[in-house]
Parts: sequence; structure tokens; C-alpha cells
Amino acid sequence: MIAGIIGATGYAGSELTRLLAGHPKLEKLLLSSVSFEGDRIENVYPNFLGRISAALLKPEEVVREADLVFAALPGGVGEDFAKAAVERKIPFIDLSADFRFDDDEETFRAWYGKAYVHPELRKFSVYGLPELNRKRIRELAAAGPVIIGNPGCYPTGASLGLFPALAKGLAASGAGPVIVDSASGITGGGREPQRSYHFPECSDSVSPYKVGAHRHTPEISRNMEMMAGEAASPPETKFPAPSLVFTPHLAPMNRGILSTIYIPLKKDSGIHEGRPRPPAAGTEALAAEIRQLYLDFYRDEPFVRILPAGIYAATNRVRQSNYCDISVHLDHSGSMLIVVSAIDNMVKGAAGQAVQNMNIVMGFEENSGLAAIPALF
Amino acid sequence: MIAGIIGATGYAGSELTRLLAGHPKLEKLLLSSVSFEGDRIENVYPNFLGRISAALLKPEEVVREADLVFAALPGGVGEDFAKAAVERKIPFIDLSADFRFDDDEETFRAWYGKAYVHPELRKFSVYGLPELNRKRIRELAAAGPVIIGNPGCYPTGASLGLFPALAKGLAASGAGPVIVDSASGITGGGREPQRSYHFPECSDSVSPYKVGAHRHTPEISRNMEMMAGEAASPPETKFPAPSLVFTPHLAPMNRGILSTIYIPLKKDSGIHEGRPRPPAAGTEALAAEIRQLYLDFYRDEPFVRILPAGIYAATNRVRQSNYCDISVHLDHSGSMLIVVSAIDNMVKGAAGQAVQNMNIVMGFEENSGLAAIPALF
Amino acid sequence: MIAGIIGATGYAGSELTRLLAGHPKLEKLLLSSVSFEGDRIENVYPNFLGRISAALLKPEEVVREADLVFAALPGGVGEDFAKAAVERKIPFIDLSADFRFDDDEETFRAWYGKAYVHPELRKFSVYGLPELNRKRIRELAAAGPVIIGNPGCYPTGASLGLFPALAKGLAASGAGPVIVDSASGITGGGREPQRSYHFPECSDSVSPYKVGAHRHTPEISRNMEMMAGEAASPPETKFPAPSLVFTPHLAPMNRGILSTIYIPLKKDSGIHEGRPRPPAAGTEALAAEIRQLYLDFYRDEPFVRILPAGIYAATNRVRQSNYCDISVHLDHSGSMLIVVSAIDNMVKGAAGQAVQNMNIVMGFEENSGLAAIPALF
Amino acid sequence: MIAGIIGATGYAGSELTRLLAGHPKLEKLLLSSVSFEGDRIENVYPNFLGRISAALLKPEEVVREADLVFAALPGGVGEDFAKAAVERKIPFIDLSADFRFDDDEETFRAWYGKAYVHPELRKFSVYGLPELNRKRIRELAAAGPVIIGNPGCYPTGASLGLFPALAKGLAASGAGPVIVDSASGITGGGREPQRSYHFPECSDSVSPYKVGAHRHTPEISRNMEMMAGEAASPPETKFPAPSLVFTPHLAPMNRGILSTIYIPLKKDSGIHEGRPRPPAAGTEALAAEIRQLYLDFYRDEPFVRILPAGIYAATNRVRQSNYCDISVHLDHSGSMLIVVSAIDNMVKGAAGQAVQNMNIVMGFEENSGLAAIPALF
Repeated sequence: MIAGIIGATGYAGSELTRLLAGHPKLEKLLLSSVSFEGDRIENVYPNFLGRISAALLKPEEVVREADLVFAALPGGVGEDFAKAAVERKIPFIDLSADFRFDDDEETFRAWYGKAYVHPELRKFSVYGLPELNRKRIRELAAAGPVIIGNPGCYPTGASLGLFPALAKGLAASGAGPVIVDSASGITGGGREPQRSYHFPECSDSVSPYKVGAHRHTPEISRNMEMMAGEAASPPETKFPAPSLVFTPHLAPMNRGILSTIYIPLKKDSGIHEGRPRPPAAGTEALAAEIRQLYLDFYRDEPFVRILPAGIYAATNRVRQSNYCDISVHLDHSGSMLIVVSAIDNMVKGAAGQAVQNMNIVMGFEENSGLAAIPALF
Repeated sequence: MIAGIIGATGYAGSELTRLLAGHPKLEKLLLSSVSFEGDRIENVYPNFLGRISAALLKPEEVVREADLVFAALPGGVGEDFAKAAVERKIPFIDLSADFRFDDDEETFRAWYGKAYVHPELRKFSVYGLPELNRKRIRELAAAGPVIIGNPGCYPTGASLGLFPALAKGLAASGAGPVIVDSASGITGGGREPQRSYHFPECSDSVSPYKVGAHRHTPEISRNMEMMAGEAASPPETKFPAPSLVFTPHLAPMNRGILSTIYIPLKKDSGIHEGRPRPPAAGTEALAAEIRQLYLDFYRDEPFVRILPAGIYAATNRVRQSNYCDISVHLDHSGSMLIVVSAIDNMVKGAAGQAVQNMNIVMGFEENSGLAAIPALF
Repeated sequence: MIAGIIGATGYAGSELTRLLAGHPKLEKLLLSSVSFEGDRIENVYPNFLGRISAALLKPEEVVREADLVFAALPGGVGEDFAKAAVERKIPFIDLSADFRFDDDEETFRAWYGKAYVHPELRKFSVYGLPELNRKRIRELAAAGPVIIGNPGCYPTGASLGLFPALAKGLAASGAGPVIVDSASGITGGGREPQRSYHFPECSDSVSPYKVGAHRHTPEISRNMEMMAGEAASPPETKFPAPSLVFTPHLAPMNRGILSTIYIPLKKDSGIHEGRPRPPAAGTEALAAEIRQLYLDFYRDEPFVRILPAGIYAATNRVRQSNYCDISVHLDHSGSMLIVVSAIDNMVKGAAGQAVQNMNIVMGFEENSGLAAIPALF
Repeated sequence: MIAGIIGATGYAGSELTRLLAGHPKLEKLLLSSVSFEGDRIENVYPNFLGRISAALLKPEEVVREADLVFAALPGGVGEDFAKAAVERKIPFIDLSADFRFDDDEETFRAWYGKAYVHPELRKFSVYGLPELNRKRIRELAAAGPVIIGNPGCYPTGASLGLFPALAKGLAASGAGPVIVDSASGITGGGREPQRSYHFPECSDSVSPYKVGAHRHTPEISRNMEMMAGEAASPPETKFPAPSLVFTPHLAPMNRGILSTIYIPLKKDSGIHEGRPRPPAAGTEALAAEIRQLYLDFYRDEPFVRILPAGIYAATNRVRQSNYCDISVHLDHSGSMLIVVSAIDNMVKGAAGQAVQNMNIVMGFEENSGLAAIPALF
């Protein structure tokens, strides 16, 4: 099988290149880059020297010859290639936001400020969060050409942390919004040097950005809706999804997203009743029960790990792997579920998940090419 | 004036030493250390060479000769010295939690697992958050010996972010808890090497700790109660304080605490009503209004800076200073107030605030010895 | 094949565990730990959860059942196990310094302050730098039980940077010592928390340590002697090895050793003759020539990469891989060869090289289990 | 007194702004910026909010109204302003390389690729390393308008580490070159975002750059010549300066330069004579003697600290201060002097030294405005 990557020299593209070069099912990898067309990938990324050697072609050449195409391009740019792929009847896995909103072009337009280029392509597309949509991905892939809207980095960590609670109806109806407070490593900002990612401006410091205005908000929110609704389990727990508040932060690390997720368990007056006390035994028991529910929910998932009591999700434990680690906690009063998820933003949050989607689409073992055991340091 | 520091070789003690050595009103500094008694401070901290030179005495000697004593000791250890200071009628500024809970020994006992050593000392003590208690600090100091319970690091950043909203009654009654999600630099863990603070285990990673169980929870909660209650402004806005959820994280940086604070502005069903949209113009206007309210509220405070629209609080902008930077935002829907505060945990979160309290107690200019202009890097 | 690791819970041991768990030839992995005996590796390193699950046994059990044993123990502790392995006629790969000095117990004693426990074992042992000793390792392994003295981290990077220059007689005889100036990541200090590796004491800072007194000095020096002498190529270039000055530094990063190596090319008065000028064209030509010599010298080595002109060795380009990257330069005057080598101290500098040695001993492909493509970030 | 800064918004300019804003002798600070003309400094650096508030003027306005002008501009751009300052008979302190080479325009041209704009200005200029040239700076300033060529960052740390050894004739004549191996924090690269300083490309990694070709080479070399020659002490030790090899590295930290300096003490065959042994007692005694010589040499210098035996120079101990810390060592054989110097590249390596020069020129206390006590973290 020949895989192609359009946009191979950005950070997501280079991570895809690295993962695919180690994938046992691939015979050949075709790469393109607008910025470095005509050069070679190992000159742009000398860390690949001796291992990956490939000319950087025009995207058209890649789409024409590959059996499956990944696009790691800026938004909007990839739709023409998606169209070409559909015409060639080959799968197209898109890492931009272009195919994440299915029919809901209105939401896409409201947040991304532009219309779909080829709206009709959405009948071939599916949101590629395997834990939520594996079945649909398979069905679509079986039916013909498929376009995968590979999830955003924050939405991946946030949604996986929320799914069991929403599907099982843990979040109290009408008890206030779910809050997702996330911190991302600096690779999330991509390869282009900018002041915000200039070492002296971001090292040794933490700060939020785009508060109340980050484009991943509607993606997480839509996922919550599906998880509480159609994917609810059992179906009768289906209930109105909670509303969402999402705040991203930048933390001085290379990789990783940690999401601390607050899910109100019951209607709480929110009124201070006497000074807080440390968690009671009952709180610990309830936490254990919910942790078990999470364990059961994800039992068959190859890339979700529910951490045992006493271990907190941390980004360094998933480094360079496709895992999403989840730890389950309660606040001191036992009325707020606090779920913490950790992913590698470049792997499960981007390139790894794209490979996972390729594996599903092609009928490979789902962890083919994704077998890296995370190193702590 | 002679100041003394008991526990000068821990991180908070050494920071106090550094700040006081540059204080224009001090003639002499007496230091003690249990771990390094008999040695000299410049041997323990060679960064002080040529600038600070002092023998490390017994704590008793310090308390006997100083005109004012700071204690940067583990909890429980300092009460005897506080007693001795009261007997000598000199001010005592305690950086542990021992004197932060006033009469409420029960809450202290519940979280710290021990009783007050000398409960009767609380009639001399006051919680030393100047922005909240400046008047009481002055009154007590005027009346005789005073003990300052210097605030915890997280409670300082969290409370300053919350005060205007609570005092002015912005938080909707019964709309759910306030959430404080904080990230701290590693100096917060103190000078003793531990696995959690071992470079390879905490660098390049973010993770939470003590979720639902951190001892700063009741301190923040009590502050919220006072801010919404007795310190409410105007007094008729006094209303039941919101309940609190507090989650601390460790971030790979030396100094700083960033707190992202979620304050529900109105009763919200919390139910997802259609997909989110980017913030409307009205939302921006409301944010500007609340930002102005914060500006007015802190207009005379020397160490609180309300950041203009478009600037997010970041820990690197307060580095080595006594400032608390606050930025004011709303979520996309305009129903959640998101306040972000940044402090240097070692300065405004510990030693700097202790110096500020000394300045108040002694009638010095409040920013004496605290005039450092923060460097960005 | 069953491999065993004694001392699996230290950093080198855990890295070995991670690499071996992904090795295609291993059927089983037996682990021991003194500190955590009776516990499980995935509890000590939760990053292994779901991937590596093994009880932590007694070392005796491991030596008794394994087909090959790795020891990642403090110096001196492993010799008894080496003896047991020899008796069982299985290979023993030791990551301590115990078997790095062959017959030269005197040098070992001078620097490590103790005698060999079982001196007679040295007839089975060989210094395990494959690029230098591959042939002897194979011969010994063919002849019976073999003990590999796996090289130190600094000596690996330094020696690989020096080998071609010494073997080819580039270093001018009598032109002064070779200087190796190295910077290591903090994992080099091991897993035990210490002040030097406490995040606030070592982050955002660089400093040297053990100047003129580091134990890797005689190991590098002995390697230089062999490289200039018996391994010289062609043999007639054999010449007295240069003397050595070695200075290690600590840099605020997790992994990696960068060694900047100064090799005098000709007898230089060392006397300033007029002010320096930028490198002339001839200097660039000479650098290119030496770079080519390095390329030719290492042409068949699977883990040494000679970087093209214009690319400097950097630790991030070898991260988590077994590569040693080498860049070749000259000073402005063209009289000093400056070779820069970069390795991952935990992989090529410890666990990876141990696996490479296992592969040689067992006749596996030399890069089995070592196929990770380095990620830049 | 009114000071002016041309180029106030670069990193060196902003650090100057911060230091001068705290200087007790200044009444007013005038700032200019080409990139941000018309804006205000506190908008460009919000860390200054509430402390420094100044419009960003045209450089001409600054030069016209100030009593002393600092220029923190790219090379070549400042000469016209220097000329204007000389005409107004006010001191001009230039942080670029334009005035570092005095009459030696040829060397300047060779390395910087351009000629002096106003060569005649060199009769007013002096190289501003106070420890070397304090007397000449004072004389020139007394005689009329003076232009200070403020030293480069690397040359400052390197030269201060070399001065006593060269002035006292410790370096053996003809024993080979002096090697300066330095590591700099990323602020050294300035404020403009570039790939090399993009967080994911430089964090968690060390690498060299411009090997054999860095422009600070001739500046260090010229300083060595002066230190071994005209500034030799006693003058009869005057001897030909050693030649120089200089290698800069980038380390993942914000501030600081660590220079490890190798000075051959005697003519050494450089031939390996038997395997190395740990340093003998005599070596320690010799190191102590040289350390004492350094102490004596710098006894009256306010900003040079010779560290006691057992303490290694480290960049975190001089952070945000004008200190140069120096530790003195020998290699294991006692034939190579290894001096390690640490400075804050933004302070003693740039803005702090400029303030020190202003203090000398104006007859202020030399440490006015430079009294910050370094914090370890």
C-alpha cells in the first residue's frame, strides 16, 4: 500500500511521516510540501536522516499515486484534493477542521469565517474520533470513498474524558455547564515561528489564550451532544447535553494536552454551606464507582487507559504515544466530577489518530504503527 | 530596625532574606535555620555571596533580638515562637497555615490534622491578605503585638481574582460553584528534593495533584465568604458566598501561579441549546464593563494590576515581583465570568506579601523593598 | 528467548525494559528490583500500563531463568550475578563501570575506590562499544559465556566523535591534549531525587560539575588509546594517543549528551599572530575533506550519522533513538578540528547500546528493537 | 539627569529600560523604537504596566533631549546618532559591535562585512569593559564627549574569566590555544521570532552554532591581547597572547552564559602517558593558589565574584544581576587551567554593563541601579 501526505513539512505532517515510516503495512510513502517543494524531507527534518528519504512532490502527484491520502494543511486548502481523492475512490484523511462539522456548515462558518468549498463532499465524510464513530467509519469505508475529518487536539482529550459521563447520564441535567480547562504544549502552535512561541516569551510561564473564543469550542460541544444523545448508553439515558465552557492555556512543554474537566453531578445551589471539609469516605467510594464505570466503558478501547486510584493523568506518561490517559476524581464535597485526560497533542491529538483512522478504514490492526510504549522522560 | 527570619534556608525563607536585604528600612537581619544552624546563609545560597552575609543562629536568639519576626517554618513548629514574640510585644509574621484560620480551629484541624498549640494567640492574629484586611491589620498592630497569618500561595492569587466579583455581587446566587483551576511552578513544593519535583519527572509535563483534597481549599473558601459577606461593597450586596471547587496543577516552570477562575454570572440551565457561536458584540461589552469594575475596585491597590483587553494574565509578566496581574474575560455565551490571575508564588504568594504585611504593620510605605519591576524573561 | 533485567526500576533499567518490551525476538522479560521487590513494574512506571506488566522478582530468580541478563545496578553490586551468569553459561550485559576496564584493575581502583570482586571474570569480559569492539564481542560470544562492560554515557558520545580522527592519525602528535566538553540532560543523574536534580535548582541554568575529576575520564582516555593504537586504520598510522581533558556539564533537558570535542590538527605555537579572520575557503575545504573521512569511516555503522555541512549535531534530533549524530567543523584558523557528537544518554548512552550488544551477542539484526525514528520534539 | 534609549523595544533595550527605571539618579527616561514608534513601551511590554510608562519617540528626539544616550540597535544603524551625540557633547553608550574595535576597522570589516560609517568617531570611543578599561573610560569622559563600545555578551564572560590568568602570565607561552566553550540562553538571539528560537525546536536540547565563525571571536581575541599585553600585571609578565578557539552553544534557558575556558598552564606534549589518575593533592593545592590569585586580582571589582572551592559557576546564581561568577579548577593532571564564568547575558552581558558604564562616565556609584541580589530560581 502507498500512503501519501499532503503538507508533510508542518509539525503534524512530519509526525505523520515519522509514524507512517514505521508502519508495517506501508510499502511506500509519498510526500508533498508547498514550502519545500523540490527539496527532500530529510533536509527539512535532519532527524530523519538515514531512516526516511523522500522527495517533496507537488500535492497533485501525491493524490494521483497514493492509495490513501492524508492532508495536514491549513483549513480550506485541502477540499480540492479531497474531491480528487473521492473521484479516485481512495480514502482521504483530513487533519484540518474542514470535515469535522459534517452537515453543519453554519457552525463551521460562524467559527472559521468561511464556507465549505465543496459542500457535497460531506456525504462521504465522517468525524474521525474512533471511540465515538468507529462503526460509522467502517460502514462508510465499506461503502466507497471516505473522507475522515480527523479531530482537533483539544476536542480529542476533552471528548474522551467526557464520553462515559455523558453516555451514562452522570452529568446532572440543568446543573450548570461542563468546564474544560486545558493546557497544551507549544508544538500545538505549529512550525511557523511566532512571538507567542518564541522561547523567551513562553518558557517558564503559563498563560491562557483565546478565552471564550477558541475554535475547538463548537467541536467539543457537538461531540458532547452526540455522546449524551445518540451515543448514550443505554440509549434511554439520552438527555440534553450540558453546555460547555472551554479555556485553552499554553504550558512550557513540547508535547501534550492536559484537560481538567468539571462535570456537575447534581443540581447544586452553589451556595456555600459552612466551610469545606476534606473528602469523606463516601466521596472516595463514589469516585471509585465512577472510575469503574469509566473502566468498563472503555474496556475494549486500545488507546484509552483509565488510571488506577492515586495516579493522576500527566502528559509525560503518554509522550510520543497514541494513548489517552484518564484519571477520575471528585471535588471535596463529592458533587463535582473532575476528570483529567492527558494526550500527546501530536499523536492522539493529530497524527496518531489519523493513523488509527487509516487502520480502521483499511481493516488493519488498529494499533498498527502505533505500538510505541511511552517513555516517562 | 532589626528583622529576624526563623527558617531562613527554605525557599520562602531565602526569598524573604533576599527581599529584606534590599529593604531600605532594615538595619540588620537575623537568620535562623534548624538544618544549617552554625553555618552561614551565603554558604547555603551562594547566589547571595558578596551581598548577604549572616550566621545561621538558633531561632530563640532571633526571636530574642529582633524587632519583628518572620517565621517560614513547617506548620505547628512556629507557635511557641509566636508566643515568645507576643510576650516581647513584637510583631510576628507567620508564613505557615497556623494563623490563617483565626478562631476556626475546627476547619484547621479537619484539614491539617492537628490542633492549635496556643489557641489563645488567635486574639492577636489576623489573616494577612492586605487587599482584604489592611484596615484590621493596622488596627491590631496599633493596639499591641500582632500575629499575621500570611496567606497561602494559591489562596492569594485565587482570592484577588475573586474579590471584586464577590464584593460587588456579580456571582449569581445559586448558579453553581465557583471553580478555581490553578497551575503552580515547582518552587511551590519547597527545597526538599522529592520524586515529584525531580527534574526528569516534572519537566516537559503538566499534571494535577491533590484533586479535591488540597489544604488551600478551606482558606480560599473562607476568603470567599468574607468577600461576599462582610467585605461586600456596597454592604447591601452581601450575599451567600458561592461554594468552591479548587484544583491545583504542577507546571514545568520555576515560579508563578496562574489561576483560571470560573464564576457563573447567572442561573444557567447548563443545558446545551444549539451549537455555540463565537462571542457576540454584547459579550465583549459586558466583559469591558466588568473589567472596568475590577479596575475601579483595585484602583488604590499598589500590587494589583487589571490588564487591558487583549492581554492575558501570564506568570512571566509578574516574575520576581509582588504584583498580582488579573485579566477579565467571558466565555463564548457571556454567562460565565472567567478571571485569570497571575502571581509569583514566592513573592506575592509568600515572601513579598510577608514584607508587604511588615510594611503595613510598621507604617512603612507599602511597597518598600518591593519595588522590583518584573522582567518578562 | 527470555531476557532478564536486574535493577529494572532505575532510569536505565526502565529504559531497557521499554526497549526490550518492543524487541521482536523476546518472548519473555523477567525483571528484578531491590527497592520495589514484590511490586509490579507498571505500578512504578504507570507509563507502561497496558503494555508492560511484570512482577518485580529477586535478582537471583532472574539470573536463574533468563537466557541473557542485563544488570543496571550500582557499581560493585553486580559481580556476583555476573559470576552466576558465567556459571550458567549465559551472556551478561553490565551497565555499571565494573567491566569497562578489562584487566586494568588499577585504573578502576584509582577512580572507583574499590577492587574487583571477582577479577577472574575479566577473561570473559569485553568493553561493549560495538563500533570499536564488535569483532571481539562476536568472538567472545562464540567462544562461550561473555560479559559485556556496557560503556558509560559520556564515553560513548566522546569516543565515537574521536574514533575516525584518532584511527586515521589526524590528531597532531604532541600538539596538546584533546578536550571533550560535554553537556548532559538530567536523567543522567538517575532516579533518586537530589538537590542537584531538583527542578528549581537545575532548570533554566547550565553549570559544570566534577571538573577534572569525573570517573568517565579514564574510560574515554583508554578508548582513545585503543583507537589511536590497536584500532588505528591503516595500522601504520598507529601513534601515541593524545592526552585528554574532560569536562561534564548539566543542562536543563531530560535526555541527551552533546559533546564538543577539540582535536589539535597540527603543532600550533598557540601564540596569537595578529587578530583572527573569518574562516578562509581553504578551511571549508579541509572541513569537507575530514567530514568525508568520517563518512567513509562509519559507512557501515547502523547507528552513527555524519551530518552534512551546515547541520550541527543537536540532542533533540536523536531523542529516544540509538543514533549518535556527529558534525565536523574547524575553528576559524583551520588548525583545530571541532567534532560535535549528540546521543540520547539513556539509549545509545545506556539501554539502547545494551540492546545493541545483545543483538550482536545473540546474532540478531543489530538494529532489532532499536528501530525508533527520532522525533525532533 | 535624563537618559535616552534608542531601540528600547528589543530585548537589550527593554532590559536597559527596566534597569534604568529603577536607577536612583535618573529623573527621566526617553525611549525610541523604530518598530513601535508612536506606541507606548508598556503596551509592548505589559510587564512594565504601572511602573514604566513612556511614549516611543523618534530616535532624533531622544538624542536631542537626553543628557546621555544608549543605543541598542542593529549594527551600523547607530553611528549617525553617535555623531549627533558627540556634537551635542553628551555620552553615547552603544550596545552594538560598531565601537568595539577602536581603530582596527580592518578586523571589524572582515567579520561584520562593512566599513565604519564615521571612522573619525573612534577618537572618542573606548571599549567598555570596566574591569579592563575603567581608567580610560574615566579619562575620556573627563576630556569631553565619549562613546562607549559596550562589550558583546560572550566576550564579557570569556574575558573576565581569562583576565587574571593572562595578566599574571599563567598561560604557558606556546602551549596551544585557549579554548572558550560557551552556552547561552535563548534571549541572546533577540526578540525576533526565528526557527532556531522557536520553543519546540530549541527546548529540551543543546547544540552549537556558528562553530569557528562567530563574530565574537575577534573581540575576545583582541581582549586577550590587551590583557596579556598592555594590561599585564606586573607589566614584565607581558607576553604574546595565546591564540583562541571559541565555540558558542544554545541551551534551553532564558538568560545566562556559561563559559568553560581552557588555558594550558605548561607546554604539554599532549601525548598520553599511561592512563589518567584522579587529581593528586598537589593539583588541589595549585588550584587553590590560582583561585587566590583570581581573588586578589578582582578584590576591588564590584561585580566579579570568585567562588570558593567546591562551588561551580552556574548561570542561575547570577540571574537578573550584574555579577560575573567565576570558579577556578584544574584538569585531573594539573596541566590545564579550567576557568568557568557565568553571567546574565542580558545584564552583565548587555544592559547592566551599559548602566555600569554610564555610572563610570557620570561619576555615580558604580553599582547604582545595579543592586539586584540574584535569586537562585
